[in-house]
Amino acid sequence: MEEIKMIVDGTVTTPLGFTAVAHAAGLKKENQLDLALVVSESDCSCAAMFTKNQVVAAPVIVDRETLAQNSSRLHAVVINSKNANACTGEPGLANARATQKIAANALDCQPNQVLVLSTGVIGVQLPMGKLEAGIVAGAKGLSRENGRLAAEAIMTTDTHPKHLAVQVELPGGPVTIGGMAKGSGMIHPNMATMLSVLTTDAAVAPDLLDGLLRMAVNRSFNRISIDGDTSTNDTILLLANGVSGTAVTDPESIAQFGTALNQLCTQLAHMIVRDGEGATKFVEIQVAGAQSEADAHQIANTVATSPLVKTAFAGSDANWGRLLMAAGRAGVAFDQTKINLWIGVQQPDELQLVANGTPTEYQEMDAAAVFAEPEFKILLDLGSGGGGTAVVWTTDLSHEYVSINTDYRT
Amino acid sequence: MEEIKMIVDGTVTTPLGFTAVAHAAGLKKENQLDLALVVSESDCSCAAMFTKNQVVAAPVIVDRETLAQNSSRLHAVVINSKNANACTGEPGLANARATQKIAANALDCQPNQVLVLSTGVIGVQLPMGKLEAGIVAGAKGLSRENGRLAAEAIMTTDTHPKHLAVQVELPGGPVTIGGMAKGSGMIHPNMATMLSVLTTDAAVAPDLLDGLLRMAVNRSFNRISIDGDTSTNDTILLLANGVSGTAVTDPESIAQFGTALNQLCTQLAHMIVRDGEGATKFVEIQVAGAQSEADAHQIANTVATSPLVKTAFAGSDANWGRLLMAAGRAGVAFDQTKINLWIGVQQPDELQLVANGTPTEYQEMDAAAVFAEPEFKILLDLGSGGGGTAVVWTTDLSHEYVSINTDYRT
Repeated sequence: MEEIKMIVDGTVTTPLGFTAVAHAAGLKKENQLDLALVVSESDCSCAAMFTKNQVVAAPVIVDRETLAQNSSRLHAVVINSKNANACTGEPGLANARATQKIAANALDCQPNQVLVLSTGVIGVQLPMGKLEAGIVAGAKGLSRENGRLAAEAIMTTDTHPKHLAVQVELPGGPVTIGGMAKGSGMIHPNMATMLSVLTTDAAVAPDLLDGLLRMAVNRSFNRISIDGDTSTNDTILLLANGVSGTAVTDPESIAQFGTALNQLCTQLAHMIVRDGEGATKFVEIQVAGAQSEADAHQIANTVATSPLVKTAFAGSDANWGRLLMAAGRAGVAFDQTKINLWIGVQQPDELQLVANGTPTEYQEMDAAAVFAEPEFKILLDLGSGGGGTAVVWTTDLSHEYVSINTDYRT
Repeated sequence: MEEIKMIVDGTVTTPLGFTAVAHAAGLKKENQLDLALVVSESDCSCAAMFTKNQVVAAPVIVDRETLAQNSSRLHAVVINSKNANACTGEPGLANARATQKIAANALDCQPNQVLVLSTGVIGVQLPMGKLEAGIVAGAKGLSRENGRLAAEAIMTTDTHPKHLAVQVELPGGPVTIGGMAKGSGMIHPNMATMLSVLTTDAAVAPDLLDGLLRMAVNRSFNRISIDGDTSTNDTILLLANGVSGTAVTDPESIAQFGTALNQLCTQLAHMIVRDGEGATKFVEIQVAGAQSEADAHQIANTVATSPLVKTAFAGSDANWGRLLMAAGRAGVAFDQTKINLWIGVQQPDELQLVANGTPTEYQEMDAAAVFAEPEFKILLDLGSGGGGTAVVWTTDLSHEYVSINTDYRT
């Protein structure tokens, strides 16, 4: 297996053949960046995953339509922050389609080669004059140097831009995958992302790209939870332009590319959790010994979403009764007399708190020391005899989360 | 239909033939009340509903066993606060059974005529010496005057005792139903109660009592949500001793008694929401136009549980996009272009915010005025053409909720 190289300052423009621009179009106050374009010098295959919410924003509807017509000759992505273009009815759909046309004109391509993403407040129409002027001005500033600024322009309550690239040596040569993500509230499977744009200079057919993206996302973005709320706009795009000259077609390349993509997605997903609204903790919840992976995931997820568990995290209180309470209400049958629970900082099984459903003789001080760390791990073994396991990453529920979300629109 | 009379200072001892006592057994600090006995002068029918959590406390297991043997000759209920006797294994079960025996000796009845309830911290064994001394001392102080103090003794993070009685004139004569409840966190269907003990001097056969209790609870305690967390201990008991001499057997009596019981449960459930941990708002969420009541309930529940919705309530921010977002992730299919949303203070349909999925021309100031009230109503009509409706009552998610739950064990 070839080594996968992490490029910590990598971005969507680290793969060959991609440029970007960030612009202050006037959607946010005080000349803050609120518009990003990501453009490929040649046609891209594209795979996408969208929110499973019943209420979907106009750009999600338009992108689904666009990709149904064209998933092999994509050229650009336009992303605006501050305004989600959600619950905006027919005018909102018309605005999303107009955005495609404006960008197509500015970039000399067809409207169905442009995807649009929006994030921000719901129920307000996009200021199309500002957006058009921004896209036209922005299109003149495309550069390989702007990947980090693009990641900044798509932020809402994020406290810092989230971007990364990975490089992997395939049998046919080296390829790079870059990515950016935004999101720090309304974070929950499915989808957990808010928005993420991934780029690669590998050549990958659309169907294969789709399969690889789904596999990676299900073990990364779909395994994080901040508040259990999913958004109307959640979208992940993966664009592959083939500019590296290396194709992903043989089994070995597919496996290696898939592993690299999975690592990229996992790291970006972790960045989202670490920057979760008001987050002061990063907690890994492992569930083992379930009848199935689905059962394990359901329990890990319910624990990760429980307000009582998350406030205990915030208070550095090793109140494991709440962990068991939350596991018990996940809708999965298990025998409470077979539960084992461990916690730890480096490894999840450093300190056993519960053995066969009953507290061990652990010292409260030792448990408190683990929960006092900014990062720790929890392992809940249901002891069902089944092999179902799952890992979910989450944060605490702090005063700061409440502050951010009581004041969001003001 | 006979009038139902609310007795606002009524308690579990308002119905004839019931006495109670409250005692400071030393489980809580500083001589606070932490033990209550409710005793009937004659045998009672009893109906009960318990938590649906997979992890259940020892008293839940023991009470289920007891009621399976005997649901027609119950005599007393022993309730302690501060310690939940949950996740305490075999020793915890033995302690719950020992509590039955201690109370049976003190009250001169059989152990299977005593039910036990516990609420408080999980994973700590009951201090049986203190509990035994408390029960023995308490049994000497039984009186009809102690109903309010009993409601106080079962509190944990509640800020005030919750009790009420209703009186109804049945064809056979007047009967009274009294009740007390505790709970302000871990409140969510099913069950929403934490603990509630209801008493009546009507004579009602156990099977009928069970049916009437389930009907009342499903429209009251199971329709409130504070934080989505259900407890290991949630229990509602309804004891009927027949001391009034009036039996509930004919259809008219059954209907009237059922209505009175439903009103009592609804009022007690509302008291729990109003006293929700850190609650500053009381919000009624109505969902209409769903394909079924189950769909409507599922959506109302998801909205009521969403941290982003609840923080918007706390901030008095009429951020209706979050209401639609939460409705959309409830797992119920609907057409977003048919959604209508109203809000109001007295009536839920005073101000329409969304018509056919698109914002109306409402004034932000008017919407903010509604959300600034301590109590308001929301009506979400899915426009599916179906007749499914449901009402759920909930609170906001405030800084105070986080403070209470980060510090609970300290």
